This record gives sequence, C-alpha cells and structure tokens, in this order.
Amino acid sequence: MADQTETQQGWLTEEDIATVRGRVPIVYVEAVPVRVDDHGEVTRIGLLLRAMPDGTISRSVVSGRVLFGERLRDALIRNIEKDLGSLALPKIPVDPAPCTVVEYFPDSDVSGYTDPRQHAVSLVYVVPVEGICEPSQITLDIAWLTPTEADSPEVRAEMTSGQDRLLRVALAHAGCLP
Amino acid sequence: MADQTETQQGWLTEEDIATVRGRVPIVYVEAVPVRVDDHGEVTRIGLLLRAMPDGTISRSVVSGRVLFGERLRDALIRNIEKDLGSLALPKIPVDPAPCTVVEYFPDSDVSGYTDPRQHAVSLVYVVPVEGICEPSQITLDIAWLTPTEADSPEVRAEMTSGQDRLLRVALAHAGCLP
Amino acid sequence: MADQTETQQGWLTEEDIATVRGRVPIVYVEAVPVRVDDHGEVTRIGLLLRAMPDGTISRSVVSGRVLFGERLRDALIRNIEKDLGSLALPKIPVDPAPCTVVEYFPDSDVSGYTDPRQHAVSLVYVVPVEGICEPSQITLDIAWLTPTEADSPEVRAEMTSGQDRLLRVALAHAGCLP
Amino acid sequence: MADQTETQQGWLTEEDIATVRGRVPIVYVEAVPVRVDDHGEVTRIGLLLRAMPDGTISRSVVSGRVLFGERLRDALIRNIEKDLGSLALPKIPVDPAPCTVVEYFPDSDVSGYTDPRQHAVSLVYVVPVEGICEPSQITLDIAWLTPTEADSPEVRAEMTSGQDRLLRVALAHAGCLP
Repeated sequence: MADQTETQQGWLTEEDIATVRGRVPIVYVEAVPVRVDDHGEVTRIGLLLRAMPDGTISRSVVSGRVLFGERLRDALIRNIEKDLGSLALPKIPVDPAPCTVVEYFPDSDVSGYTDPRQHAVSLVYVVPVEGICEPSQITLDIAWLTPTEADSPEVRAEMTSGQDRLLRVALAHAGCLP
Repeated sequence: MADQTETQQGWLTEEDIATVRGRVPIVYVEAVPVRVDDHGEVTRIGLLLRAMPDGTISRSVVSGRVLFGERLRDALIRNIEKDLGSLALPKIPVDPAPCTVVEYFPDSDVSGYTDPRQHAVSLVYVVPVEGICEPSQITLDIAWLTPTEADSPEVRAEMTSGQDRLLRVALAHAGCLP
Repeated sequence: MADQTETQQGWLTEEDIATVRGRVPIVYVEAVPVRVDDHGEVTRIGLLLRAMPDGTISRSVVSGRVLFGERLRDALIRNIEKDLGSLALPKIPVDPAPCTVVEYFPDSDVSGYTDPRQHAVSLVYVVPVEGICEPSQITLDIAWLTPTEADSPEVRAEMTSGQDRLLRVALAHAGCLP
Repeated sequence: MADQTETQQGWLTEEDIATVRGRVPIVYVEAVPVRVDDHGEVTRIGLLLRAMPDGTISRSVVSGRVLFGERLRDALIRNIEKDLGSLALPKIPVDPAPCTVVEYFPDSDVSGYTDPRQHAVSLVYVVPVEGICEPSQITLDIAWLTPTEADSPEVRAEMTSGQDRLLRVALAHAGCLP
C-alpha cells in the first residue's frame, strides 16, 4: 500500500494539481480523532496544531486529499497516519457515510468554510484511536481536550477555515457537544 | 453495575412487566455483532440461534429490553454480554443515534415486524466485537457469516419476526449489503 | 385517527401512567420544526414557549409520548399538530432513524437531560413545516428564529431540561449550527 | 443560476475533463427520487431508463457531476431537473450528509461499483419529489415502482454499474427495503 500511495502521489506534479484545482472540486476526507471509554463515549478530542492553507498556525482535525484510485477507507487511514503517526490504531467506522459533508471555497461568503487553494468537498468522520499518537510530518503538536475544552471560546478562536464549526458538528454527532 | 442491574431486573416482577406491556411501548436495543478488518470493513456478521418470542428456534441478532434507569450504552453492553458472553469486547459506536428504528407489534399487518408479547420500539446498532464470543444463557449457537451468506435465501428463511429485514438495513448501513 | 388517539389516551388513566413511569423507560418523540428554502437549507427554527415538566415557562421543541399501538410517524404528526395546530403541514423525513436519541432522567447527573416525572428515551427529528403554525393547547407562543438567534446565549438561557443541547445537535445535523 | 451553470459547463472542454479524470477522483451526486405519503413513508421509487457510461440502456437513479464552484444542494437540484424536468419540485433533505457514499472505479474488482470513464466519489441522497416528472434530455423514460417492484430480480437485472446495490442502500435508509 505504501509503495502504491507514493507512486500515486509522485505521479501528480505540482503543476498538474494546480491545473486540476482550477477545474473541478477536490475530494477530501477529514477525521476528528477521539479517545472513547469502554462504552463508546467520547472522553477526549485530538486537535492538531499545524500550518494551515491560509498561512496561519491553527488547531485543526486530520485532513487530506483522496488520491486517484484510492478507497475512502485507505485515504482515511493514510491521512491519520500522516498526522498522528503509524501507531495511532484508528478504528474506522463501519458506516461509509460521513457524519457530515463540508464544502470549502476560496470565497468565504459561499459556505463559511474556506480554502484559498481550491473548491474542496470534504467527507468528515469521527474516528476513535486506540494507540499512541505523536505529531508527524507537518503536525507541530496534538492536544487531547475534553469536549467542553474543545468547544471553549479560547480553543475555537485558534481554529480557522471553519474548523470550529466542523468540530461542533462532529461533537454533536458523537453526543458530546456541551 | 452488575449488582444494580440485578436489582433492577429483580424489582420488576413478571406480573408488573405484563401490566406495563399492555399499556406503553417498551424500549429495546438490538445489536448486529460484526467482525471488521483494520479498515472498518465488515467481514462477518454474527447471527444467534435461539428461542424467539414467537416460539420458533430462529436466527436473530442481539436483542433486549432497556431497564428503568439504564443508559442505552449500558443496555447495549449488558445485552451483548448476555448473548455473546463477557469476553466479546464490543466497540459501541460513538454516535448515540441508531442506524435504524424498528417497531414491533403483535399484529403483523402494522409494520411487518412482529412480537406477540408487546409493542416494542427498538433502536438498532451495528456493533463490531473484537473478543471471544460464546453462546451464553438462552443463546444456542452463534454463526459468523459473510455478508453474502447472511443475506442468502437460506439464512433469511431461518429468521422470523422481521429480523431478515432488520439485518438487511444493518448491512446496507455498513455498506456491505450484496 | 383523532378518535382512536383519544381512546388510546383516555384508556391510560393518570394512575396507570404513574405506575408505568416508575417501572420502564417511556418512549418519546421530539421534533424540531424548521422552515427551509427551496434548496432544503434551514432558514428558521420554531421554538415553543410553554410550561415544562419542571414547572418553568421555557422555550422548547415539539415533544410528546408515543402511545401504545401507535406508529412513530403517527406520533410525530399527532404531537406536531398538538403543538403547532392542524395546518402546520409537516414533512416527516423518509429515514425512520432519528438524528439523535436523548435520554431524560429525574437525576440531572445521569445524562444532563432531565425530566422530573420519568426516565424517557426520546427520538429526535428535524421536521420541515410548510403550513400555518399557531400555538395550540398548552403552547403559549411560537417564535421563528434564525439558527444564529436560536443558538444565542439569551435563547439558550430560556431553555431547560437540556433542550438547549438537544437543539444544538439538531442544528448541527441540519448543517446550520453557527 | 442557469446562465452561470452553462458558463461553468462550457468552460470545461472535453479535453480538460479527460485530463482531469485521469488525475483525481471526480465528485458526483446521486438522487433516488421517491414519492412519499403524508407520513413521509415512501410509496414509489422513480427509476430512469437511460444510456449508461458503460454503453448499456439501463435503469438508474438521478446522477451527475458537481461543477467547480457549485454547492452540493445546487448540484442536486440541477441534476434532478436535468433528468426529471423543471417541474419535479424536489424536497432536498435538510441534512447535508448523504445516506451513503459510493465509490466508482473503472476496475470492477475495487468496490463493485464501476464507471469506465473515471474514479468517482458519489454522495447519494433520497429525495422526495412532489411535482410533475417527465423524461428530459438523455432520459428515455421514468418508471415509478413500489419498493417491492424496485427490489425485484427483474428490475435489478436491468441495472448496471452497481446501481442495484446503491438502490438497496437507499431503500434500507428509507425503511422500505423488503
């Protein structure tokens, strides 16, 4: 899988992706990593600290493009490993339907979700992780917050692009929005 | 928890439950136990063989009443342990919303789901189990079938009360209905 | 329908319902009435002003018990008509699964959702209404608020029993939580 | 909207779309048009007869690409009008999350859903239509079938690309899969 993914990524040059981004919506997956107790109740939400497309250093969830030829489940796992490391042990939900769909546009007036690079359609999942998570690649830090902390004004102010709203939908879906 | 549950069960006599059953709908939870691979894809469905309320020996999913004062998550775990044993290690979904709701009535004309004892409103969940499952209490056997086997005419014919339709909804929800 | 409903309600005396309430969880449906534009986007949320089980005059959504022998869809329509009048023209969703399930207990420590009378398991739906809504029976007033107004601290403070949290889950589900 | 859509479509040449299709997954929406009664229960499913990407004349649901800069709700309405005419009066669901996500690949071994032209990620919705539907553009005919008819072996045999499985998931989601 790793080899195949590298090939797929290598094959799409920066020029190619720029061309494509101006022509069609790009498919993304986003995962809200959570810790759950043995009743499936969310105890902690994992928020990444990282450089965002808009140039800020912000709190965000796991996010990444779905590659040509790649299954959604594979894209979820690959992007979780990219951001949380290969020992995170994600439990991908059985239901292929996302908990919500978010539409990012360069123009902030369209949906309230923004991405200066592209029009992206993002499938959002809440994903329990059972293993060891450590910042990898472009992730600077991972904070594990309670639902109340994650929805606090302070933490929401550290999120851009609409990630604060996306997180609320995920918390509501998981029955733990304060 | 075990003590409290026993107390709750002990406290409602057979006479009480008969009285209540003629007056209000009874809340049930049902769990479709599944084995999943490391991508969250369902590989096997666990079907119980057991005596059903209608007097038949039939294939069915995990099912049981929600007790007075009991959380839905607790009811799910208690009923899974009752039918699959205490080592099943169920992974209760984070989303409190069921994948479907099924309404059982004594009269088969109302919804197609029948229970001769009562009007029951049942919240249905697909629950991955990671541990060892063994028939316990009233369960005679557990068969682990592929999605195609579980939806075969032979297996569907062994299910009564509408459990074959319930199972199809669960398989559809899990993206593995043939 | 109306006659049958009255019979069903009349048949369960106050004494009966008190007995039952102490023995099993009671099934409820709750509907968040919304106005939608021709793209299905929520523009307004209908909040009732009424006397709550806890004795307060509070803002709340449509809520009511499911009767013995009654289908969930019938219970939704009956309770919407009870609170919004018979010209509300509700569009009941095709999916029988609720957007969330809320568990009410007399003790506020159990789930954060409270009902001093009983343990209730409530199936929550977002229901577009297209007709004329007017306060009926125990409803004192109906306010049609934008999503931002409905989630404001002022309006949230007027809700008790956990209705403010329930409303947030519904708004998140409808993609309009600010 | 009509003008803008034409511009968007006109702007992407056949050459452009061919280039893009070989590089990234393409976002689609699919709508299963249904007639519902006043309780929201599905009575009929609308199946189109049309030329499919694989060269067959087959039964299928409403389907189409999401354009660059286009909202999902707009894409749903535009594609429903394209296939059912402008008087169909679709009731787009409030929940932006699809009832399932289907992944089409040129290779039938990957997911069982096939599209010889491309890798497509399709968001599937069940959409009640209240108006007059008539075949338009590339649609040859529309048949309104009961759930039992739509899931019959004869009708399933007239569907290709995995549309028979997609339809089952939609029927299950709507609580009307036999």
